[in-house]
Amino acid sequence: MSRIPVAVLGATGVVGQRFVRRLADHPMFEIAALTASDRSAGKTYREACEWRLDGEPYGGLGDRVLLPSEPEKAACAVAFSALDSGPAKDIEPAFAAAGVHVFSNAATYRMDLDVPLLVPEVNPGHLALLPTQRQRRGWKGSILTNPNCTTTVLVMALAPLHEAFGVETVLMTSMQAVSGAGYPGVASLDIMGNVLPHIRNEEEKVEVETGRLLGQVENGLAVSDPMTVSALCWRVPVLEGHSESVSVKLKGDPTPDQVREVLAAWKPLPQQLGLPSAPAVAVRVHTAENRPQVRRDVEMDGGMSVHVGRVRPCPVLGIKFALLGHNTERGAAGGSILNAELAVARKAICS
Amino acid sequence: MSRIPVAVLGATGVVGQRFVRRLADHPMFEIAALTASDRSAGKTYREACEWRLDGEPYGGLGDRVLLPSEPEKAACAVAFSALDSGPAKDIEPAFAAAGVHVFSNAATYRMDLDVPLLVPEVNPGHLALLPTQRQRRGWKGSILTNPNCTTTVLVMALAPLHEAFGVETVLMTSMQAVSGAGYPGVASLDIMGNVLPHIRNEEEKVEVETGRLLGQVENGLAVSDPMTVSALCWRVPVLEGHSESVSVKLKGDPTPDQVREVLAAWKPLPQQLGLPSAPAVAVRVHTAENRPQVRRDVEMDGGMSVHVGRVRPCPVLGIKFALLGHNTERGAAGGSILNAELAVARKAICS
Amino acid sequence: MSRIPVAVLGATGVVGQRFVRRLADHPMFEIAALTASDRSAGKTYREACEWRLDGEPYGGLGDRVLLPSEPEKAACAVAFSALDSGPAKDIEPAFAAAGVHVFSNAATYRMDLDVPLLVPEVNPGHLALLPTQRQRRGWKGSILTNPNCTTTVLVMALAPLHEAFGVETVLMTSMQAVSGAGYPGVASLDIMGNVLPHIRNEEEKVEVETGRLLGQVENGLAVSDPMTVSALCWRVPVLEGHSESVSVKLKGDPTPDQVREVLAAWKPLPQQLGLPSAPAVAVRVHTAENRPQVRRDVEMDGGMSVHVGRVRPCPVLGIKFALLGHNTERGAAGGSILNAELAVARKAICS
Amino acid sequence: MSRIPVAVLGATGVVGQRFVRRLADHPMFEIAALTASDRSAGKTYREACEWRLDGEPYGGLGDRVLLPSEPEKAACAVAFSALDSGPAKDIEPAFAAAGVHVFSNAATYRMDLDVPLLVPEVNPGHLALLPTQRQRRGWKGSILTNPNCTTTVLVMALAPLHEAFGVETVLMTSMQAVSGAGYPGVASLDIMGNVLPHIRNEEEKVEVETGRLLGQVENGLAVSDPMTVSALCWRVPVLEGHSESVSVKLKGDPTPDQVREVLAAWKPLPQQLGLPSAPAVAVRVHTAENRPQVRRDVEMDGGMSVHVGRVRPCPVLGIKFALLGHNTERGAAGGSILNAELAVARKAICS
Repeated sequence: MSRIPVAVLGATGVVGQRFVRRLADHPMFEIAALTASDRSAGKTYREACEWRLDGEPYGGLGDRVLLPSEPEKAACAVAFSALDSGPAKDIEPAFAAAGVHVFSNAATYRMDLDVPLLVPEVNPGHLALLPTQRQRRGWKGSILTNPNCTTTVLVMALAPLHEAFGVETVLMTSMQAVSGAGYPGVASLDIMGNVLPHIRNEEEKVEVETGRLLGQVENGLAVSDPMTVSALCWRVPVLEGHSESVSVKLKGDPTPDQVREVLAAWKPLPQQLGLPSAPAVAVRVHTAENRPQVRRDVEMDGGMSVHVGRVRPCPVLGIKFALLGHNTERGAAGGSILNAELAVARKAICS
Repeated sequence: MSRIPVAVLGATGVVGQRFVRRLADHPMFEIAALTASDRSAGKTYREACEWRLDGEPYGGLGDRVLLPSEPEKAACAVAFSALDSGPAKDIEPAFAAAGVHVFSNAATYRMDLDVPLLVPEVNPGHLALLPTQRQRRGWKGSILTNPNCTTTVLVMALAPLHEAFGVETVLMTSMQAVSGAGYPGVASLDIMGNVLPHIRNEEEKVEVETGRLLGQVENGLAVSDPMTVSALCWRVPVLEGHSESVSVKLKGDPTPDQVREVLAAWKPLPQQLGLPSAPAVAVRVHTAENRPQVRRDVEMDGGMSVHVGRVRPCPVLGIKFALLGHNTERGAAGGSILNAELAVARKAICS
Repeated sequence: MSRIPVAVLGATGVVGQRFVRRLADHPMFEIAALTASDRSAGKTYREACEWRLDGEPYGGLGDRVLLPSEPEKAACAVAFSALDSGPAKDIEPAFAAAGVHVFSNAATYRMDLDVPLLVPEVNPGHLALLPTQRQRRGWKGSILTNPNCTTTVLVMALAPLHEAFGVETVLMTSMQAVSGAGYPGVASLDIMGNVLPHIRNEEEKVEVETGRLLGQVENGLAVSDPMTVSALCWRVPVLEGHSESVSVKLKGDPTPDQVREVLAAWKPLPQQLGLPSAPAVAVRVHTAENRPQVRRDVEMDGGMSVHVGRVRPCPVLGIKFALLGHNTERGAAGGSILNAELAVARKAICS
Repeated sequence: MSRIPVAVLGATGVVGQRFVRRLADHPMFEIAALTASDRSAGKTYREACEWRLDGEPYGGLGDRVLLPSEPEKAACAVAFSALDSGPAKDIEPAFAAAGVHVFSNAATYRMDLDVPLLVPEVNPGHLALLPTQRQRRGWKGSILTNPNCTTTVLVMALAPLHEAFGVETVLMTSMQAVSGAGYPGVASLDIMGNVLPHIRNEEEKVEVETGRLLGQVENGLAVSDPMTVSALCWRVPVLEGHSESVSVKLKGDPTPDQVREVLAAWKPLPQQLGLPSAPAVAVRVHTAENRPQVRRDVEMDGGMSVHVGRVRPCPVLGIKFALLGHNTERGAAGGSILNAELAVARKAICS
């Protein structure tokens, strides 16, 4: 099969760079266009951006000239959007209207009821929103989104528990990496030797997205599952990876052993299909009493699996555990690419 | 009034040093003896210990010769114990039997029903356990303990809410400083750029001590108040100060404003009595959306107040907030000295 | 004596805040005006700036209305300038022309031969440049500068050695704190767990300022002493305080003991005069083999002394040692205020 | 060619683990024995050690039973020694006497004039010491050592300059990672937000080993090249990788461009031979003004290359530059294995 040409919208930022690195040698997609803001368009990728990742600088595309983020300049079958929420508002619909399938990391359209908010292991069925979206909006293309990074990590652990038992209540304190704020992001004077008790809009996103991710499609629209979710989001001096301290009330009050078994046995659709970016194991269950640890575990599986440890009884909600996942891979670029792989494999796009 | 002569048991460690620094210029107490393990006894304080705190090294007592931790060598009216739980087991009762009032930072006797587990702002009435203790054990002296550092910070915020409304349920994730593990304690290879999901025995202590602190004395023995407490304890790369992410169910479901008012208006006994180590304000209520922050706020009031911020509705338990306190001052040396000040002021000892 | 009214130019930044905190309770100066950029002028100090220091927020002046940085609006006998180099170019001469004595932390006029580049312990005689400056420029007031923070720390240790022996050659690698870059300054993604090998223009400043500081006044103009200085400047993940790894060739090749004696015995003019901001001891000489340490030692003496340790033979230049000083106190706000104290005490201004 | 069976002496420590990981899939060597102290011998590798590295835990050898460090129990053609200097004193000669070629990371025998102190890119000719060693000591086997990690990084950059120009004088300040102190090593309370001005014996090692590495073999014994070296060694809060701030006097005073050219063109013997652990490029020359950076660059080439940047004129010694290398790979396990690869390829052993 020849590879599908794709554009990366907003290629110069931290998430854009991760898109480029992941797509540089992808079996299904091939980078045809890199776009940037007007300030950078026309420059080469090397001139316009300071590469901040390990591995081959610029994914080997340092000489590629950046295009403006306009569909007539950068139209491809598929686009990955690393745009901020503001610019995404107009740019992403313009591409969708032009027939492009936009896989977006921006928050702008996440909660629209005809836009898939998608984690392939969790709610692949939400691809079924696309016909409604195209019909309602008159687009030939589409917009598909991945959730907030903190939500993504959380629902990866909750989904198998929701399937097996039913999630009623979730209380989660996050300890989030500085990379979640982009670059330059968090000032070193603010975070070195410190923790910060507030991340703007973060708790609100987690509380509303979780039920949506674990919910259903009815009459072509997304319907959240009823559950109570409380998020308390903190920033900690960690480079990559969000740790989450989770308590959960499950129907039937399973034991920690039952919870561990369900998590370890989970083999959802992307793993069944063998999608290129799907980790072999979606949820890695740790038994060592002091694991998972973000610095030591988060890069495993290319950052695409999540890690659960210390599953134990919670006096308040029944079960508590430590959870860990990669915010800029699984929670951003990698998650979005996996969404596209799923959409192609399920013939929801490009079929 | 002449100052009461005191001993510091285990003066060379991190908590012992804080005892010495706080007592070096104390209006009520005067250091008469410093004790150490057999390995160090006979050396001067300067020889035996590497001073790790700011301010005058060795509290000006660098030339003092360390005594063995034996009551016949180091008897005083009052002793402050920075001993580890193991050595405390035999040494503290030996001093109590010899007539010394031992204010202990060790966990060994905390949960005995005739031993005050004391935070002066929270449960000063638990001094009423002392007659039972002396009678049961035949001691002329006594043992009084302060709780685990994480519990201490937590109950400082819960006590006024328990008085005003009644605490039913508490779910708390802690982000604890490395100083809580003593010296050398946490290896830099383990904690730099990392968070650790486990601190041995910590969750268990918080879950059992909290109800005890908020409880009563009945028939001369401690009776815990019934409440459900779940603690999830993590280590973070912070030097001093424990941050706590707290959700709480209060009777009558007060609003965040009502909670803030109660916290801000609280003026418990140590503040009424003007005890020397009592902070002017027991709970500092922050309104800035990104405060309190451990590195910036924890040293205020000599580390003796606790800090509450971001009081807001919790979808699960009703109220959630950010909490912060100093683990080695309020949660250890300072807390223990304040206990002694209360006991003297209330004529429970040395009257 | 009534206190001299002073203005703080650029009061909202990190250095401006340190000026305000140091001047809030100063025996010689009294804050009469706080200025800011046009964007902030007209707002209160509290509205316009996020206070980032310990101690009383806004130095108690949170309600003070910020003035524009114009001499007709904010004229005082003395001004402390925390302006950036760009704005300082026009604003500082405007104040000087209006009769204000401007003590500047900006690099703009440091190397002009009629502008004192001043560290009171090192070259108090450079106040003798002021008559030339006023005559040449036709100003009633004046501009006096303090050197780059890295230079300041270095010359504090070199000055007594230059007096006693003569400094011929200096090779210095700095490990500089993030606060030196202002706020937000260094991104946490750049510096956490990292060191950076470059600080723009820093090496050039140290190499040219050092000889100037240790030089003379001849015919009313500054003349640098001949010496060879090489600086290699790095950024490290430290909040406050610059560490310097120094090798030096001294005339007559003194021993490490002789060097330590000279440093310990040094009592320069500010200490003789007892200036309010002068530390009791200008250079603290450490003998412990693993001191000075920036986090543990830099706040001593309000950050106004420097620390020397590990004086030992250098196979290349003769003597090597570890050096440490506070970049935003001694190297910025505190240094500038000490300059003003010296100028007043020596009746070079305001007499 | 069948693989040569090797033993790892002291397999449970940090360096031992790196040996195991590097040898787990090595084309030339095959792990036949893992040894440990008496306390651990008899346990499985998994039981006796907490694996601290990324990648497959225990190099897939978790079930291997640890042997005592005795040649009659663990004899192989080749041994890699991760022993501490103390135990190495007796154990390494015992293995050498038994016919084993011991590639040691310990400091014990480094400076003996008949023991190769070897970096394959730098002084491969020092293998010529082995006949003298065997003759003098009556061993069938041999001991070959790699230098201190800080020296190794330094001589990798100096060797091509010594070949091309001649090194006369070196002045180097190191900023060393905490991993250099082993595990648990540096306490987090000591290093977080701090730098430490002293590393025991480190400066002495660098100053004596450098001339030896750049020296010759005469009459079967090592002869150091005459040069003056001064090292100032500091610890910084970095996990892996030593940064070095280097000034050097070269004969003929070459320009920075000439220095860069020589470094970039250097292709020493291991690269010519294509030894399995040799990096494709021995010295990577950076031109970006703020590189190399330890956290971003040190893992390149499996940690086996060193990085030079900011080559510029030094007012004191002529040339200064920033240098970076991996202390536990190139400076320990990887360096030692490369020594063995060289020795085999040159038929100095196992021929």
